[in-house]
Amino acid sequence: MTTLKVAMIGHGFMGAAHSQGWRTAHRVFNLPARPQMAVLVGRNGPAVAANAEKWGWEASATDWREVIARDDIDIIDIVTPGASHAEIAIAALKAGKHVLCEKPLANTVQEAGAMAAAAAEASRRGVVSMVGFTYRRVPAASFMRQLISQGVLGQIRQVRASYRQDWLVDPTVPLTWRLQQDQAGSGALGDIGAHAIDLVHFATGLETREVSGVLQTINTQRALPDGSGFGQVSVDDLALFTGRLSNGALASFEASRFATGRKNALSIEISGDKGALAFDLEDLNSLHYYDRTDPEDRQGFRKILVTEASHPYVSGWWPAGHMLGYEHGFSHQVKDLVEGIHNGTQPHSSFAEGLQVQRVLDAVTRSAAQESIWTRVEHDAQIHAG
Amino acid sequence: MTTLKVAMIGHGFMGAAHSQGWRTAHRVFNLPARPQMAVLVGRNGPAVAANAEKWGWEASATDWREVIARDDIDIIDIVTPGASHAEIAIAALKAGKHVLCEKPLANTVQEAGAMAAAAAEASRRGVVSMVGFTYRRVPAASFMRQLISQGVLGQIRQVRASYRQDWLVDPTVPLTWRLQQDQAGSGALGDIGAHAIDLVHFATGLETREVSGVLQTINTQRALPDGSGFGQVSVDDLALFTGRLSNGALASFEASRFATGRKNALSIEISGDKGALAFDLEDLNSLHYYDRTDPEDRQGFRKILVTEASHPYVSGWWPAGHMLGYEHGFSHQVKDLVEGIHNGTQPHSSFAEGLQVQRVLDAVTRSAAQESIWTRVEHDAQIHAG
Amino acid sequence: MTTLKVAMIGHGFMGAAHSQGWRTAHRVFNLPARPQMAVLVGRNGPAVAANAEKWGWEASATDWREVIARDDIDIIDIVTPGASHAEIAIAALKAGKHVLCEKPLANTVQEAGAMAAAAAEASRRGVVSMVGFTYRRVPAASFMRQLISQGVLGQIRQVRASYRQDWLVDPTVPLTWRLQQDQAGSGALGDIGAHAIDLVHFATGLETREVSGVLQTINTQRALPDGSGFGQVSVDDLALFTGRLSNGALASFEASRFATGRKNALSIEISGDKGALAFDLEDLNSLHYYDRTDPEDRQGFRKILVTEASHPYVSGWWPAGHMLGYEHGFSHQVKDLVEGIHNGTQPHSSFAEGLQVQRVLDAVTRSAAQESIWTRVEHDAQIHAG
Amino acid sequence: MTTLKVAMIGHGFMGAAHSQGWRTAHRVFNLPARPQMAVLVGRNGPAVAANAEKWGWEASATDWREVIARDDIDIIDIVTPGASHAEIAIAALKAGKHVLCEKPLANTVQEAGAMAAAAAEASRRGVVSMVGFTYRRVPAASFMRQLISQGVLGQIRQVRASYRQDWLVDPTVPLTWRLQQDQAGSGALGDIGAHAIDLVHFATGLETREVSGVLQTINTQRALPDGSGFGQVSVDDLALFTGRLSNGALASFEASRFATGRKNALSIEISGDKGALAFDLEDLNSLHYYDRTDPEDRQGFRKILVTEASHPYVSGWWPAGHMLGYEHGFSHQVKDLVEGIHNGTQPHSSFAEGLQVQRVLDAVTRSAAQESIWTRVEHDAQIHAG
Repeated sequence: MTTLKVAMIGHGFMGAAHSQGWRTAHRVFNLPARPQMAVLVGRNGPAVAANAEKWGWEASATDWREVIARDDIDIIDIVTPGASHAEIAIAALKAGKHVLCEKPLANTVQEAGAMAAAAAEASRRGVVSMVGFTYRRVPAASFMRQLISQGVLGQIRQVRASYRQDWLVDPTVPLTWRLQQDQAGSGALGDIGAHAIDLVHFATGLETREVSGVLQTINTQRALPDGSGFGQVSVDDLALFTGRLSNGALASFEASRFATGRKNALSIEISGDKGALAFDLEDLNSLHYYDRTDPEDRQGFRKILVTEASHPYVSGWWPAGHMLGYEHGFSHQVKDLVEGIHNGTQPHSSFAEGLQVQRVLDAVTRSAAQESIWTRVEHDAQIHAG
Repeated sequence: MTTLKVAMIGHGFMGAAHSQGWRTAHRVFNLPARPQMAVLVGRNGPAVAANAEKWGWEASATDWREVIARDDIDIIDIVTPGASHAEIAIAALKAGKHVLCEKPLANTVQEAGAMAAAAAEASRRGVVSMVGFTYRRVPAASFMRQLISQGVLGQIRQVRASYRQDWLVDPTVPLTWRLQQDQAGSGALGDIGAHAIDLVHFATGLETREVSGVLQTINTQRALPDGSGFGQVSVDDLALFTGRLSNGALASFEASRFATGRKNALSIEISGDKGALAFDLEDLNSLHYYDRTDPEDRQGFRKILVTEASHPYVSGWWPAGHMLGYEHGFSHQVKDLVEGIHNGTQPHSSFAEGLQVQRVLDAVTRSAAQESIWTRVEHDAQIHAG
Repeated sequence: MTTLKVAMIGHGFMGAAHSQGWRTAHRVFNLPARPQMAVLVGRNGPAVAANAEKWGWEASATDWREVIARDDIDIIDIVTPGASHAEIAIAALKAGKHVLCEKPLANTVQEAGAMAAAAAEASRRGVVSMVGFTYRRVPAASFMRQLISQGVLGQIRQVRASYRQDWLVDPTVPLTWRLQQDQAGSGALGDIGAHAIDLVHFATGLETREVSGVLQTINTQRALPDGSGFGQVSVDDLALFTGRLSNGALASFEASRFATGRKNALSIEISGDKGALAFDLEDLNSLHYYDRTDPEDRQGFRKILVTEASHPYVSGWWPAGHMLGYEHGFSHQVKDLVEGIHNGTQPHSSFAEGLQVQRVLDAVTRSAAQESIWTRVEHDAQIHAG
Repeated sequence: MTTLKVAMIGHGFMGAAHSQGWRTAHRVFNLPARPQMAVLVGRNGPAVAANAEKWGWEASATDWREVIARDDIDIIDIVTPGASHAEIAIAALKAGKHVLCEKPLANTVQEAGAMAAAAAEASRRGVVSMVGFTYRRVPAASFMRQLISQGVLGQIRQVRASYRQDWLVDPTVPLTWRLQQDQAGSGALGDIGAHAIDLVHFATGLETREVSGVLQTINTQRALPDGSGFGQVSVDDLALFTGRLSNGALASFEASRFATGRKNALSIEISGDKGALAFDLEDLNSLHYYDRTDPEDRQGFRKILVTEASHPYVSGWWPAGHMLGYEHGFSHQVKDLVEGIHNGTQPHSSFAEGLQVQRVLDAVTRSAAQESIWTRVEHDAQIHAG
């Protein structure tokens, strides 16, 4: 069987999760090509070597440019912080490597736009690229999209999306790079709000056309990690915004790191004139479906356990009722990427889709800076269609 | 025992609910005075007589002015549509009657302001007035306020409130007065959004200082009730807005009549730095409480069944675990009003509080008309303190 | 309109609940006759007079025999402890009074049998009798029966029923009459297990033919109420038993007063080859329905809010989504009794049905005394058909 | 780092799950030795070779005796059907191999007893053995045990355990080996009831001393897989039994393959005089905890998301709120086995514990054959202490 040699750049928490996907996908699914975990790349040589050994990479390296220059590498997987995504991804695409890039695509619309353009150009040379919005590939989320595309909701009337965590409620959490705008781009908005936006786009097939929003930094001062005093938090802790979707429906969004007691609550509810669907990542094997075409006295949200062989991705795993978890999405992502490369087709989500999420984030930031006034989301028909 | 003679003006659905409260409160609680259901008032003589007979009123009448003029009447209960609240309430207060007025206090800020002024003036003469936000008196909601006032949440950081129904998803629902602005004032915003605003104010003890919001009429044309064709819906079906509370925290609000599958889902979640509380009217005997002071590995939302004798209002009813329903709040309202009259104290919610809700609704409407720009909620220190 | 004069014998907690039913039913439903709360009967004159005044009874009395002898009384409602049910009910039936008797029908099969015989005899004279298993008349429970009788479950394969409370976990609860066999008959088994048995019979239309069970007294010593020391608990705290239903299916039962954290959890799940239904009294407005005829990938338990006008009893109350509570069943019971009297038909549950529950309790007790050996439930075709 | 060479015998569904554990454990946890997936063994050469390739085993073989005879193999992992467990495990233990044996330990008490004796004997030579009750190692289940051993429940008063599936509701499911007694030993009882028994023993630290139970085959005829007609189902579809635990508390058990709508619902609720715990495998990242030492008005079941780094096994995986699934228990099992081998200590569950579960199954079967009479569970102090 063909193998596809993978180099992964970055080795933080997301590196562990991506490694699990690379290690597992072909053990579970019948892939047309087998990923080979060739090299793990990071700046700190001993640390990256240790992680390569632990996670199952054959080798490690410290210079990503050298790795991209290697002829034998097929796929570049980027899990570095957002600020370096553009440079690495564009270089990899130019070098003819297929690219998987962790979300968010970039820290700015400008960078994301350049990446999407590079991906479109590379696509014409048969090079595949993909943004790692793995929550799309939770079976219940994929099934949600499938049901909607089959028309079970009828006309979508409104959407409610939120991603709530609570790790910043603790005042002793220090001022890391994630809380500084120059490094993280934004706070809750870009980190987790991006997932909510992407999931709405994915599930509904609609786009966000304009937004009105507000950002708030609740705890503005935090201890510096080195204990030398306190510094200013320069990103948002809480983002609340409303979007107008491409069919005219309104969608409410919340991204919070101050939602006490909520650990990883990416929730979405989509209401249509024939039914409704509700999903929550804290109960990720379930999808709640309300069917208005049921007899009136028997209508109710039904809790579907999305663990049947007939549900997306499930047939590779376990029998009905055996739960999947967070990291399964990384195997599903590998499966779809490998199949896309093999078949010469673009798997979702494309860099163009990732760019569109970035543009929503940008519009929210601009609206928030202007008293929440409704603000158009930039839209480039050419690139998007690319 | 003293009796308090009650006249109720209006006899629609809310009349039935209020009647249940008047009939029941003194059978369950030990009240200092006993309400006497003296007269039910409505324009349609035979209809009001039939309802008086059914609901247990001793007599019926068709002219509310005559009833207010009677010396023997102690309490006027107003359950007419909002457009007539101001005229009746002000007349009753001037006549020295205690007044219970169904929410919303009025259709406009101007009317509500006049009512609050009249109530403040009457209060100096020992006359008690009250707005019927009965959801405050669901035991779980009252207990939520009690816990917050005891400080269990610490600093309140953010609030999430929504009231979702779905009865307008059905396109055949006709164009009744509730869907016409001149009669109803507003749509989902004033009808159910008002409850969400009031519950946030009540539970947190905070006020909404400014808002940014959007209103949408999803289905703009509906059949006229008389079958003569179609007419224009002139109120909102969906209201989404954000409020900044008096302590600086942000609150998100939704009021919808298009939330498919949600029947009466008034939900509120309040997040503080010591804990969180969540309540949903569709599960009204429960209150969910997250305590951040629990050991880390044992933290979780606990579902408190608010049916213990130590919970608000419960001791009058049944043993622990025996559920209460929607209409119990009307008995609790009567209890608190009667006790307020007897003790000469103002029960919540005062007309001033009702006015403040009206001002939030008005600010949302103004914001929505100006591209969702942040808009101050009017605030009158004198009246509010009244 | 005709009135039906009611005398209620007994005035404890159940007296308050029954009074609420008598006071409310005709205010909500259009009854063919109106109950008149004529007289409340109890041994302690001043106490019964006070309760009569509080609950809305026109008069009070201390001798139930005198009351039964009165010509003007139409209905006798018995809410005394179980030991006196037989004597009062039989006397009332002989006197031609319609009888509503709180459950359990009696403390022994012998007494219950005599009552059922008296009821059958009275029935031939047009006298109606009814046992107060009010949980049948929670709308969700009635709807469960309706769905099953329409065949939505297909063949019933197994049943799971439990009634769990936790008030005896507290070791300081004193040794009241409820914990003494000579007065209470049995403990958890008869008090709450009886409800579980009755609800299974009612919902499925099946009967329990034989049982195997065990009883346990967990806390055998409790303080005497008068503080004079400790006494022996002579009833069960926990009953676990299995029943074989008339169609051959097995049903598991639990009745517990030691189920820590469960307050009033009467739960039932009925599994058939076409679907399943699940109900829990702690969430009494919901019914969970699983439909195996749905497409496989869309199957799931749907949570039906049983608050639509098309659901049993709901049309008399509030709009969809407005919750009902514990005491509504007492109004529904009055409605059905009054309609039965007016129409000359037997409302459920008949004394014969109550007797059958008593026989199951008796068989469980006998099985428990014989190493849990399977034990036939007595069955008398004549009486049952009565 | 040391490696431990593993041979796995059997390659059905459980082989895939065990392979995932062997492949993953050392990638996630810091193990003292690294498992090497040396050889996969099965009778069908091409099939086993294909699975070895797919799942990541270095080689395959068809004769388990030859593999056990190899000097370089350290661990034998047995995932064959139960009938062959004893022969393989005893041979492996005699050959000095550490053994992981999938549950149930064996099909009969006699076989299980021989295995436990062989394990005890091997243990004296430093050979480690373990039964694969992986549900113990779901973090929430492990945490349940931890909390109980810390005393949070006080005295355990009663236990409620069930394992409910519904795959046999479909009448077209054919008569496979799982439905034939000579091959499967028993039906729902041994297959899934064994898990419920083991989880009760594990969580509470108690044993089942005697039982009363009933077995039922609901659908007695099923189509033969070869289409040649119909055959007799010779195992139970439904098992209902009660156990008396070593502290005197009663436990109710249900194992069903006819619980319509329940896919993999292993549920357990443990009630003590200080609190209660409830767990359900269909929501496996949660543990519900009721603390009676909370203030009375704040008591409630709290839903703990068992995904904190301080919870068992979680620190190796993802941040708080990132869900684990079914197969993670197989990695945890490998971790504990490898650590046990390295440290020379017995990881749970021992073959003696597996034997004890087998004895409970046997006693249930005997009770069911004797009218559900209470039946002692065999108990051998020597072996158990081994």
